Amino acid sequence: MTEYSFLGKSLPRLDAAGKLTGKAQYVADLNIPGMLHGVILRSPYAHARIRRLDVSKACALPGVVAVITAADIPASAGRAIMAEDKVLYGSHPVAAVAAVTREIAEAALGCIEVEYEPLPVVSDGVEAMKPDAPLLHPNLYTESMTGKASTPSNIANFTEFRRGDVEAGFAQAAVVREDTYRTQMIHHGYLEPQACVAQVDSGGKVTIWASVQGAFTFREQLGASLGLPLSRIRVVPMEVGGGFGGKNGMLLGPLCVLLAQKAGRPVRMVMTREEDLRMARPAPPTTITVKLGATREGLLTAAEVTMVYEAGAFASPLPPSGFVTGLSPYCLPNVKVNGYVVVVNKPPVGALRAPGAPQAAFAVECQMDQMAEALGMDPLQFRFKNIVTQGDRALNDLTYARIGFQEVLEKVAQHPNWVRPLEGKYRGRGLACGMWFGGVGSSAATLNINADGTFALLVGSVDLTGTRTIFVQIVAEELGVSPDEVSVVMGDTDTAPYADIAAGSRTTRQMGAAVQQACHDAKAELIRRGAASLGVAEGEVEYRDRRVQMKGHPEKFVSLRDLARASISTAAGPIVGRGASTRPSPAPSLAAHVVDVEVDPETGKVTVLSYTAVQDVGFAINPTMVEGQIQGAVAMGAGWALSEDYIFEDGILQNASLMDYHQPTAADLPMIDTAIVEVPSDNPYGVRGVGEPPIVPSLAAIANAIHKATGVRMSKLPMTSEAVWRAIRAQAKG
Amino acid sequence: MTEYSFLGKSLPRLDAAGKLTGKAQYVADLNIPGMLHGVILRSPYAHARIRRLDVSKACALPGVVAVITAADIPASAGRAIMAEDKVLYGSHPVAAVAAVTREIAEAALGCIEVEYEPLPVVSDGVEAMKPDAPLLHPNLYTESMTGKASTPSNIANFTEFRRGDVEAGFAQAAVVREDTYRTQMIHHGYLEPQACVAQVDSGGKVTIWASVQGAFTFREQLGASLGLPLSRIRVVPMEVGGGFGGKNGMLLGPLCVLLAQKAGRPVRMVMTREEDLRMARPAPPTTITVKLGATREGLLTAAEVTMVYEAGAFASPLPPSGFVTGLSPYCLPNVKVNGYVVVVNKPPVGALRAPGAPQAAFAVECQMDQMAEALGMDPLQFRFKNIVTQGDRALNDLTYARIGFQEVLEKVAQHPNWVRPLEGKYRGRGLACGMWFGGVGSSAATLNINADGTFALLVGSVDLTGTRTIFVQIVAEELGVSPDEVSVVMGDTDTAPYADIAAGSRTTRQMGAAVQQACHDAKAELIRRGAASLGVAEGEVEYRDRRVQMKGHPEKFVSLRDLARASISTAAGPIVGRGASTRPSPAPSLAAHVVDVEVDPETGKVTVLSYTAVQDVGFAINPTMVEGQIQGAVAMGAGWALSEDYIFEDGILQNASLMDYHQPTAADLPMIDTAIVEVPSDNPYGVRGVGEPPIVPSLAAIANAIHKATGVRMSKLPMTSEAVWRAIRAQAKG
Repeated sequence: MTEYSFLGKSLPRLDAAGKLTGKAQYVADLNIPGMLHGVILRSPYAHARIRRLDVSKACALPGVVAVITAADIPASAGRAIMAEDKVLYGSHPVAAVAAVTREIAEAALGCIEVEYEPLPVVSDGVEAMKPDAPLLHPNLYTESMTGKASTPSNIANFTEFRRGDVEAGFAQAAVVREDTYRTQMIHHGYLEPQACVAQVDSGGKVTIWASVQGAFTFREQLGASLGLPLSRIRVVPMEVGGGFGGKNGMLLGPLCVLLAQKAGRPVRMVMTREEDLRMARPAPPTTITVKLGATREGLLTAAEVTMVYEAGAFASPLPPSGFVTGLSPYCLPNVKVNGYVVVVNKPPVGALRAPGAPQAAFAVECQMDQMAEALGMDPLQFRFKNIVTQGDRALNDLTYARIGFQEVLEKVAQHPNWVRPLEGKYRGRGLACGMWFGGVGSSAATLNINADGTFALLVGSVDLTGTRTIFVQIVAEELGVSPDEVSVVMGDTDTAPYADIAAGSRTTRQMGAAVQQACHDAKAELIRRGAASLGVAEGEVEYRDRRVQMKGHPEKFVSLRDLARASISTAAGPIVGRGASTRPSPAPSLAAHVVDVEVDPETGKVTVLSYTAVQDVGFAINPTMVEGQIQGAVAMGAGWALSEDYIFEDGILQNASLMDYHQPTAADLPMIDTAIVEVPSDNPYGVRGVGEPPIVPSLAAIANAIHKATGVRMSKLPMTSEAVWRAIRAQAKG
Repeated sequence: MTEYSFLGKSLPRLDAAGKLTGKAQYVADLNIPGMLHGVILRSPYAHARIRRLDVSKACALPGVVAVITAADIPASAGRAIMAEDKVLYGSHPVAAVAAVTREIAEAALGCIEVEYEPLPVVSDGVEAMKPDAPLLHPNLYTESMTGKASTPSNIANFTEFRRGDVEAGFAQAAVVREDTYRTQMIHHGYLEPQACVAQVDSGGKVTIWASVQGAFTFREQLGASLGLPLSRIRVVPMEVGGGFGGKNGMLLGPLCVLLAQKAGRPVRMVMTREEDLRMARPAPPTTITVKLGATREGLLTAAEVTMVYEAGAFASPLPPSGFVTGLSPYCLPNVKVNGYVVVVNKPPVGALRAPGAPQAAFAVECQMDQMAEALGMDPLQFRFKNIVTQGDRALNDLTYARIGFQEVLEKVAQHPNWVRPLEGKYRGRGLACGMWFGGVGSSAATLNINADGTFALLVGSVDLTGTRTIFVQIVAEELGVSPDEVSVVMGDTDTAPYADIAAGSRTTRQMGAAVQQACHDAKAELIRRGAASLGVAEGEVEYRDRRVQMKGHPEKFVSLRDLARASISTAAGPIVGRGASTRPSPAPSLAAHVVDVEVDPETGKVTVLSYTAVQDVGFAINPTMVEGQIQGAVAMGAGWALSEDYIFEDGILQNASLMDYHQPTAADLPMIDTAIVEVPSDNPYGVRGVGEPPIVPSLAAIANAIHKATGVRMSKLPMTSEAVWRAIRAQAKG
């Protein structure tokens, strides 16, 4: 393995101190002269016709500068951001106000008169599919590969996937099990609520400072929504206080711009925690039926999966592709998947860390354990027998390159936390796997050499997880300089070259490769200029230790510093390295989790005793940051598994505060153990995406552990104390 | 001449509306959370020893967060920014305070105890050179080409320049005249006073938002001053409310950073108008003696110039090279120049629009008129006989390429404002020439193609004069798109590629060339990708009308939009065009001014009746903007000539307000006529620098007009009503 100076080392995160000391600049810190405060009037009904809407009193309130309603929203923006004739979910925006203070803006909301005619609420995806269910959209016709349906329904989309012959597959099986699993709606739990500031200049050009995961994606969405070319929108990404997919979209963006356009002044919109819980784009609830068949020897012969994906009130822009990943760790000759995207009177959903995959893995990995039990096999051995390896064809038709699935399971098999016995009653050890393709997309980077031989790196990706530190490590490594000599800016859409959104576990892998290429480009130029300066051919020199020197004659050299200084005063001009990385092929990464739980049979309370996450990361450029990603994902998964839930009544959220929406705290979890496996991908440094895979197995791992501890099979999330207690009681009553 | 779509057209300035409506963001508009306000304690003496300095009461004042004195200033920062043992000019900083409000900071200044021992004040450059003059710096030894002097003096620098044999030249002359001219100290008159905000992050990295002409130059200066590598400083240039050379330097920068470092919080410093008049870097006062000799036929045979340049209390970092330009329009076989840079107890001086050149041209062009009079020749004909042309060697050893000096004088000769007779008593028509080499330096630009085929241009130059509009015109022209499809950002030092300061009339010429090159680079890449997409060789396609199309088969094409869209999802990656322009060779530009004045003999008041500025601009990319530059420069020159002055008493400025420092207003001047001559330079578009040449002749043109009107020769500026009245009276008394 290559000996690196800065790669593979745990350099401290460059953003950490600023975030801890409050120096980092978030949207809420922005204060532009003349700035107004924008707020939203939210529907108190989940489904209702708007009979009358009168904003005249709000407009007349002193200090109110602009009020917008559906009439101000261009058709291209869609009705999810503001209701027109009817509201379709609780908190569906009905109007928005910009005023000189937030207090005045909120007072104005109270002056807006709306008359609603309540309509029947459709709140469950499976119910919503029934022919007699009330319709949300009278003109919604199911889209599928065979075209559009002829009668309207609440099913927005139907996707089929077929491989082999499922009937024949199940016929070959010695054991077949079919069960249904349900997952709930959950929030991303980011610290910083949704926020943006929009300003429109005298020429109509929009500048928007936002808490977003992808400045370029946001610009693209905003351009489409408002009908503006990309040159007329500048998105300036601010420090992001957590994203996890929840800041992939542009929730407040169009309303903020429309208010700023109407007001002719900058407008800031910052959601309260309550608003964020009510209005942001949570993870979709699902109902998944999994049928698996296997031979007596434990080889899977067929799988059939039917899933119902609740999109909320508007069909999600995200296809539920994440669900395929549930089956992806395994060799499956015969597969049939039926996917339904269904609209219900709930907030529209969005991406959340490995979108769809934890839900699918919950169903598939619980079912794998049930199969192993039915076959009388060890759950790890059962998985070993079926795992995919290099050369296998994945369900998305990718042929696997070198992957580390086998190595991850081997690591589990040898891990002390798997090997050591777990003693005590009501204690159980659960195992689950999960994978994510990750790491696709497009990135570019620009590396400027400063006049004193230090470096300025410009990238268009947002730093969610410490990636600026990674890029500095790469530049320092490639150019042989100290990290202090490298500045890095996560630029805006008018300054940085294009970068895809920081999502899909892609930033380190994709942008890292672009940064490396920019370094190579800059180094090649240094070599050209150094050779010219030494009066020799390029082939005769090499770059080393801040010098371009003659091979074999290190005393004949020109320094990086001198070349840099000369670059700004000689004809060749400043040195600008360019790099781009655009690889369609993902770098699959497998995670396997082992969790020990203890269940209190009196209360149903589940205590996580130990948690071990094993993952193939390809190559850990910064091991501490990799570990942090894994630990964060597991904590998030534990909340999803055990406590978090959106509780609706008549479609209205009842627990819109962090008091009532219970995320795990440090007190709820043990230290998470991590074990890093490094099977290099085809990336220059072998990196695989790290952020998403470690949430995927967590729901099932905990459910499988509870099953081992209690014998009850929890097929519905969250597995709260009450739910577990009820299941234990039901089992005892038998 | 090429037919352009957008070049040579007067597109409206992109920055105009924002500046007029208050939407443009200046430093004073910044409001960072936790930001403090910094103010400076200024010396009330022009020359004094500091006996005692006690800041303890200021430190103890509630709300004061940091106080700095000379002890906090690194030696590398120099003593001009803060006095150590003695103060050397009125308003020399003695301490600085950062507090939570400006009011508290100012109150803290009042609590600082300083005991001064006044020293004799040296306020005149010529007096300062005398051997018995009090010394400002006990260790200042004159530097010259022959080394350092052995005894200290107030002469910081002595420069000699020799060509041919001056004695022989004067011996050949039929007419020889020698006279001495004096110019005063003047302020740049920018609207926005000096301002910056500094923030130091937890890792010590400095970010500074500043009103500066060159972000990179400012960073370089700040790095040298504070001993930091360039990677540890980010300079973010804000909108600039006028520069004219006054924002070349970093007046407040080091103090602001040092306060922010000590306070651990961001600090904003914004000068009041009074402070700016007292402390900014004005144009140097000069005393210039010019001796010219010419043959009876009017051919110049020799010139000898001795100039004394008052640098203020510290030797200027700027060599007084501008002075050479006074003689540069003319063929001179024999030349001798003696230049003295002298320190006096006044604020340090700095660059102001064509630094040194208007002063030199005042002396030389007045003397040219006196010679013409002595020879009995028309002043225009006399200049015609001596003007340099292509192939001549300039005084800076440049051999002139194609220049438009001849064409400018021809334009004057034919201009109605020169040709028509001027009637009336006490009226006179003055003529003067002036040139500026301009347009040198280094620039780079990056052009990103957005995913929808629009463009994002990134440059590191500051827009002082509307240059962002010029760059959009260039991109629109080169890529055949509309200006709306091009965004342009004047980037900061961590994002943009290197650019020299926006000074020396270089931005349009140098950065314009870099932008053009970036366009060509992007276009070449479009052609490569277009050809590949069409499956043909590159040579078979061309870029036209937003398409790459087959030559001769315009129906076979791939659109810019499709290539752009593909670039972000295919292996080639986003398209980034790079351009750089680093030309050591300047593009000389000549201006000739014709001015008609009327003098009231009762009061001495000079009324400018008409003013005509003729200038070779090479090629006017935006004629209205060129005209605006010329008109602004003439207005500035008229103020310099007629009214503006720094009035000192014991070295303390007595007129530090715009009530008492009289800049001309619209009421003081007629509409300025401009006549553009276009003799292309070697720049891709033929552009020459525009901003500085038009101030150069203005002082002398007005003095020559007053002479024609009254017969008095004003050899000292400003030519106020009182001064002219006294001169007329003295002449009458004869």
